[in-house]
Amino acid sequence: MAEAIPISGPRADRARRVADVLRQQIHAGAYPDGLSAEHQLAAEFFVSRNTIREALTVLKNEGLIDRGPKVGTHVAQRKYEHGLDALLGLKETFKNQGEVRNEVRAAMPVAAPPAVARRLQLAPGEPAVFVERLRYLGDLPLSLDLTYLTPDIGTQVLCHPLESNDLFALIEEVTGQRLGSASLAVEAIPADAHSAATLQVPEGAALLMLERLTCLDDGTPVDLEYIRMRGDRITMRGNLIRSRAD
Amino acid sequence: MAEAIPISGPRADRARRVADVLRQQIHAGAYPDGLSAEHQLAAEFFVSRNTIREALTVLKNEGLIDRGPKVGTHVAQRKYEHGLDALLGLKETFKNQGEVRNEVRAAMPVAAPPAVARRLQLAPGEPAVFVERLRYLGDLPLSLDLTYLTPDIGTQVLCHPLESNDLFALIEEVTGQRLGSASLAVEAIPADAHSAATLQVPEGAALLMLERLTCLDDGTPVDLEYIRMRGDRITMRGNLIRSRAD
Repeated sequence: MAEAIPISGPRADRARRVADVLRQQIHAGAYPDGLSAEHQLAAEFFVSRNTIREALTVLKNEGLIDRGPKVGTHVAQRKYEHGLDALLGLKETFKNQGEVRNEVRAAMPVAAPPAVARRLQLAPGEPAVFVERLRYLGDLPLSLDLTYLTPDIGTQVLCHPLESNDLFALIEEVTGQRLGSASLAVEAIPADAHSAATLQVPEGAALLMLERLTCLDDGTPVDLEYIRMRGDRITMRGNLIRSRAD
Repeated sequence: MAEAIPISGPRADRARRVADVLRQQIHAGAYPDGLSAEHQLAAEFFVSRNTIREALTVLKNEGLIDRGPKVGTHVAQRKYEHGLDALLGLKETFKNQGEVRNEVRAAMPVAAPPAVARRLQLAPGEPAVFVERLRYLGDLPLSLDLTYLTPDIGTQVLCHPLESNDLFALIEEVTGQRLGSASLAVEAIPADAHSAATLQVPEGAALLMLERLTCLDDGTPVDLEYIRMRGDRITMRGNLIRSRAD
């Protein structure tokens, strides 16, 4: 078998290669009853047991697996999949996986900062409606969502129960229009101390940070969101198409 | 003006709201000569200067801005945009922004772990070609890419200069076919110690972790990648479409 010749830290390089493949196998549900024994993994990946141990340490530090003497290596927590290529609310996304519950931390008209007013095409001085929700799937906090809505729609949305509904569904209900498209930015950021405490993760934990501007079917922007998702709980999945050069 | 009434930590909640809007303004290039003075930002966001200071601390801890007495607040480093809805190599993506250079850490046939073999539809015992590259834009390390290629294509790709070419372009060159689509998983993970050192970030820094399986136009899977992008350097952007319920 040909063997990789890394520039430095050969075992750490091999461990990373193993960890990356194992991570996706775990997400795909390959190990519902615990991971294979170290010697089996070593044979599968053509590496030493020490390299397997180092790879498992990487995944343990990500919060993905638990390891213990006698009990072996188990998946610590299921990661949930959120669509990158469809515009769906969290409740719609997880309708078969559990109850999405929103802790509403704020819901009120606010003076819109100029940058928010521009994105939502508000008139000068026009307020926005601000909604802040900590979103749970069952008992697990998944994301902290800050949302600015245009005032006409937002005011009507505030009359509905926000604890148990996706904002997308409420926007479609009060407007009688379908949502059309959204522009999305995805980043990885460290959790600041207060966001970390709110999402029940250590300070500095890796978060998926989304900014999403959603428009009605007719192109009118109505919903600007800043969403912090727990990196250890959510994977975003989608499909890409090769653009044509011609 | 209506004021948000958060459940706890009111200033930290307000600071988060300010930081989220400012982050995107910075990405959009709103402050090429440095951020506005604290009292101006306080007026724009309808908050106190203390809240602005706390918001700027959040962005400083993300590595996005530098602050200093007398010099003010400046953008520490430009974030680069990578497409979420088009399948493009890094060199194609940044062709107007600088030279993409690849430090090739490994490039060789390897025995494929079973999970890799399945994704690439390899025959039992068939090897894969493994390429590991640390990718720079100018002098900045942006990402660490681990790639498994099918053996026929991979063997031909290895005959080309990997330092200066995207693998996507080389695959299209050696096959004479266009790439078609890819399935993508995006996560936020903490950098393990060795990956952190390689990417020149602190251990535990937030990384965007991509797994991407790319197929030729005829649907044949040819390229399975595990990509760690520096969270402080890359934002992924794309568009979502509301799926039809009917």
